[in-house]
Amino acid sequence: MKDMLSFATLKRMLLLGSGAGAVALVATPAAAQSLETQYIFNTLSFLMHGFLVMWMAAGFAMLEAGLVRSKNTTAQCLKNIVLYSIAGIMFYLVGYQMLYGGASAYFGGFSIWGAGDVPDAASLEGGEYSAGSDWFFQMVFVAATASIVSGAVAERTKLWAFFLFVVILTALIYPIQGSWSWGGGWLSEMGFSDFAGSTIVHSVGGWAALAGCLVIGARKGKYGADGKVTPLPGANLPLSTLGVFILWMGWFGFNGGSQLAMGTMQDVTDIGTIYINTNLAAAGGVVAATILVTVLYKKIDLTLALNGALGGLVAITAEPLAPSPLLAIFIGAVGGVIVVVTVPLLDKLKVDDVVGAIPVHLFAGIWGTLVVPLSNDGASFGPQIVGIVAVGAFTFVFSLVVWLIIKAIMGVRIDEETEMAGLDKSDCGLEAYPEFGTGSQRM
Amino acid sequence: MKDMLSFATLKRMLLLGSGAGAVALVATPAAAQSLETQYIFNTLSFLMHGFLVMWMAAGFAMLEAGLVRSKNTTAQCLKNIVLYSIAGIMFYLVGYQMLYGGASAYFGGFSIWGAGDVPDAASLEGGEYSAGSDWFFQMVFVAATASIVSGAVAERTKLWAFFLFVVILTALIYPIQGSWSWGGGWLSEMGFSDFAGSTIVHSVGGWAALAGCLVIGARKGKYGADGKVTPLPGANLPLSTLGVFILWMGWFGFNGGSQLAMGTMQDVTDIGTIYINTNLAAAGGVVAATILVTVLYKKIDLTLALNGALGGLVAITAEPLAPSPLLAIFIGAVGGVIVVVTVPLLDKLKVDDVVGAIPVHLFAGIWGTLVVPLSNDGASFGPQIVGIVAVGAFTFVFSLVVWLIIKAIMGVRIDEETEMAGLDKSDCGLEAYPEFGTGSQRM
Amino acid sequence: MKDMLSFATLKRMLLLGSGAGAVALVATPAAAQSLETQYIFNTLSFLMHGFLVMWMAAGFAMLEAGLVRSKNTTAQCLKNIVLYSIAGIMFYLVGYQMLYGGASAYFGGFSIWGAGDVPDAASLEGGEYSAGSDWFFQMVFVAATASIVSGAVAERTKLWAFFLFVVILTALIYPIQGSWSWGGGWLSEMGFSDFAGSTIVHSVGGWAALAGCLVIGARKGKYGADGKVTPLPGANLPLSTLGVFILWMGWFGFNGGSQLAMGTMQDVTDIGTIYINTNLAAAGGVVAATILVTVLYKKIDLTLALNGALGGLVAITAEPLAPSPLLAIFIGAVGGVIVVVTVPLLDKLKVDDVVGAIPVHLFAGIWGTLVVPLSNDGASFGPQIVGIVAVGAFTFVFSLVVWLIIKAIMGVRIDEETEMAGLDKSDCGLEAYPEFGTGSQRM
Repeated sequence: MKDMLSFATLKRMLLLGSGAGAVALVATPAAAQSLETQYIFNTLSFLMHGFLVMWMAAGFAMLEAGLVRSKNTTAQCLKNIVLYSIAGIMFYLVGYQMLYGGASAYFGGFSIWGAGDVPDAASLEGGEYSAGSDWFFQMVFVAATASIVSGAVAERTKLWAFFLFVVILTALIYPIQGSWSWGGGWLSEMGFSDFAGSTIVHSVGGWAALAGCLVIGARKGKYGADGKVTPLPGANLPLSTLGVFILWMGWFGFNGGSQLAMGTMQDVTDIGTIYINTNLAAAGGVVAATILVTVLYKKIDLTLALNGALGGLVAITAEPLAPSPLLAIFIGAVGGVIVVVTVPLLDKLKVDDVVGAIPVHLFAGIWGTLVVPLSNDGASFGPQIVGIVAVGAFTFVFSLVVWLIIKAIMGVRIDEETEMAGLDKSDCGLEAYPEFGTGSQRM
Repeated sequence: MKDMLSFATLKRMLLLGSGAGAVALVATPAAAQSLETQYIFNTLSFLMHGFLVMWMAAGFAMLEAGLVRSKNTTAQCLKNIVLYSIAGIMFYLVGYQMLYGGASAYFGGFSIWGAGDVPDAASLEGGEYSAGSDWFFQMVFVAATASIVSGAVAERTKLWAFFLFVVILTALIYPIQGSWSWGGGWLSEMGFSDFAGSTIVHSVGGWAALAGCLVIGARKGKYGADGKVTPLPGANLPLSTLGVFILWMGWFGFNGGSQLAMGTMQDVTDIGTIYINTNLAAAGGVVAATILVTVLYKKIDLTLALNGALGGLVAITAEPLAPSPLLAIFIGAVGGVIVVVTVPLLDKLKVDDVVGAIPVHLFAGIWGTLVVPLSNDGASFGPQIVGIVAVGAFTFVFSLVVWLIIKAIMGVRIDEETEMAGLDKSDCGLEAYPEFGTGSQRM
Repeated sequence: MKDMLSFATLKRMLLLGSGAGAVALVATPAAAQSLETQYIFNTLSFLMHGFLVMWMAAGFAMLEAGLVRSKNTTAQCLKNIVLYSIAGIMFYLVGYQMLYGGASAYFGGFSIWGAGDVPDAASLEGGEYSAGSDWFFQMVFVAATASIVSGAVAERTKLWAFFLFVVILTALIYPIQGSWSWGGGWLSEMGFSDFAGSTIVHSVGGWAALAGCLVIGARKGKYGADGKVTPLPGANLPLSTLGVFILWMGWFGFNGGSQLAMGTMQDVTDIGTIYINTNLAAAGGVVAATILVTVLYKKIDLTLALNGALGGLVAITAEPLAPSPLLAIFIGAVGGVIVVVTVPLLDKLKVDDVVGAIPVHLFAGIWGTLVVPLSNDGASFGPQIVGIVAVGAFTFVFSLVVWLIIKAIMGVRIDEETEMAGLDKSDCGLEAYPEFGTGSQRM
């Protein structure tokens, strides 16, 4: 590292404060940042953080592809690439304007999104960014919501029924509830605070997934008549591990980009804080889940460690900026504990969530949203609870109705024979791993 | 998201125009962007978008590793990491100067590339960037071209024959034709327009692959004497899915970085538009391919959905900036359709393209290049057709000659015994999946 | 690419110098970069390059998951996500201040890291960045060190023993030796030069791994009584290939971010040079390893090509800025050769390094550190050798003591029965690939 001595000196000055008083330079006019430069930095933040969030689509795909059985792996990959595509198109045609375009407190409007022109540099007032870069960033968020559902209802849902649900989710359900808060609607006026979407993105995905699981029912063989729960282990755990690392990386974009600006010293410094808290919350989730699982089961279940990371990430998402690093570790650790505790709980209720999406995204999302007031003085518990309940009730009921309508029209569940043989051969015509033989645990 | 109300207000102002007139601040001198800042943004764009395009090397590797049979998977991985390495070294030693260094309209010159010095800030006139960052960005492009060939000729080509071809492709074939357009040669003077390389990169890879497939011949067992086509399914489809997500992500760098600048409001806004169109074209390719495949075959072939995404991406690459989002969806959708239609066509012609590289990169690349004039007023159909034909004829003939010379010198094809046993054991000494047993479909 | 003619013209001007004299514009005041803009660019460099280095955690995980046998794959994935989490938390609680916070020449201090406030724009003097962004960047480095150890001691180490070692490594061992150089301690005062950590990061990981391998011993069945070495091939080579591509991509962050600044023309241009040299060194490593392996063994071992890339990357890390591209290729090529030559050497010494971490990170790291004076005038061989030896002796002895203490307290090695059955079933309760059957080579 070039120029190490002055680097160390500088660091000491910055960190220990010993040199701060020594800075004697008078600020020149050039110390001020131009508004055009601000615009570029703000836009760049949406673009860079946006491609990181887009990358999360791959993370969900790998996580889920590894956690399903090999006979349904092709279908799971297919669902993930198609849902990401549908999400983009529907958010363009309907969703974005339904989220942000409205004058109403309860929903936006119906119109196709169109980018504004590039503003004139002379008319800038600070804080602007290209409308298209923002669209791109918001689009990848709605795709994440759809990915959450995909994992929970895996292995027994009809492909086209799922795609139809994604159309409604990304065009209407997500945008309408989002308009209440991020769109400037009634929840934001009440003071509900959800920085990057513990509730608005993650719990919405979780509620929609829960509705889907209830309508579609559990996989054959999962829950015996005697209450016995049969594990149906995923076929490729390194793939799921990769998926979690991808999601972890993408989360820097998810939370960091939600600062919505990078064009001032304060904004870019805040993004740094967000990266730290996001990373430490995930780390806290992993460590807490790993320790708890060891205590409870004397073994370390990899899938719970992975979901512990995600639980920590979801939990910090509602407020990744205000907490101290220590509080971020704590919030994430509790997120990880929630996952470990609630995964068996869902099995007791015979809700068959294949990848643990509901514990991770719904339960840890509620936790994260609830504790925002611990560090953010602008938030208070009342509006947080109202937001959690209102978004949950709306999303769950709307999703339930949509799943039921789809069930009435075309059915949501593959027939028993297809389920035994797997979706891959019957609906995709291709096996995911045609050469890898039949292991002892296949069922 | 911090400060939501003002965020929503700002968004309404930007999107609905209702507040634009309210901006009353007089532009201060600080509204102007410094030329040094421009230089840094432009350079950063090459670096950031460059590492995204570099990442596409991993995408091609995973796509191909998943689509070959397990007995050739190690060799396919090896080919991809070696070709990326060769491409970098050859582009440094020969290619870059052959592409950009020439005074001639038909080729550059022979010299080793050397970076310019850092310009003096006082001498900047706007639009500059570091020459090294541009080299890096252009280098990863040539690697993409070589990756395209690697997939098409998989499973029966001699490793060193392939490497030798890559040497010529990256030192001469790609750079010479590139000098005609991006190097400022005769095609660019005629008005040929190919923003990020539907023709210059993708169809060049496709033509080189086609020449290779013809010289090398089809895999044993693929085409029966009776005209029957035997599918030889890939061994690991989630890996191919990952590869496509990687390529999709990398394409933001491929197309976004081809703006060649990020240092003005216009440039960064344009990059945002490019991201949107790139994403929607891919989405259009996936949805169109998925629907068409369902209609044609009553099943949804994952590999066609994946290649549909790539077809959409290749199609939009010739002009990702000018189209409206709706046109981008259309261009991409047709790209996806082309892939679905031409994959069986190649099989009828007994051209054995293992991963579908020719439909994706050549056919969709021609389509994308052809339709540039639909949205770009500066382009017209004549020069587009001349460019497509000239680049195609040059690349195909040159590649054919090179493949034939290699065939004469050392042979291009492994012997039959090696082909039956697979390249991995005989040429690499390592199986890709030594423990995964022998599935029923292995052949 | 927009505006191709002027692009080519500009390139010729930059590259050939023919147009440099033509630049007649007088520098306006706006040519100067504002200090706030500098601060944002510098911080952005840490953030962007930091998420690339974070991504390397996934690279190590995939590399190692593919190189172990399937019966230990779940455990290897688990170790990687847990070690990354521990590293972040320990570096927060202890490590960062131990590295950078000290007044002593030999170690930092014990205190919890706290970010400085955002500086006042008026007090900037140039070169500053947010303290949090720097913390984030340094944190991902320490995680890389721990990942190196994880691969070497795979398949026979107790999970909790490994985790305990990671706690000490990331809290004390890495930070203390780092304080000698990057922390401004005695090595930096002597003139030791290690730009991004060939010694400080990579050889430290290698020494700690070597100590672990000696204490823990070889895997059962690896070394016969008759001196015969039995290969225990990895279960999933495409995964390892992916891992190397991830590491390669992440290395642009590792080396590029180590410029520690991006806010001037010189800095961003230097980062471009670093990207080029990093890429070409890796390419040199691949090509050299591939040719040498072909000559030696008549086959191309994929794992040696992959480790050749890593050897090249490690070698260039000590000085990625000063070398010419040609020298970078040479340094990387020797790094690749070192790997090919020393992998069998370790086997002769019966040091069982599962993934080749010691050849790659220790031996190539020494080479890279040694040759810094070839290109960097500020470095000389004396201090380089002192640094290599001092860091090596400290790390090896400290690590040896820690491994021995852990062995005394809880044991470092799983029992023989568990080793035969694999860590996954006994300690994780989950198989990595439950359905993939039992191949012929499983042992």
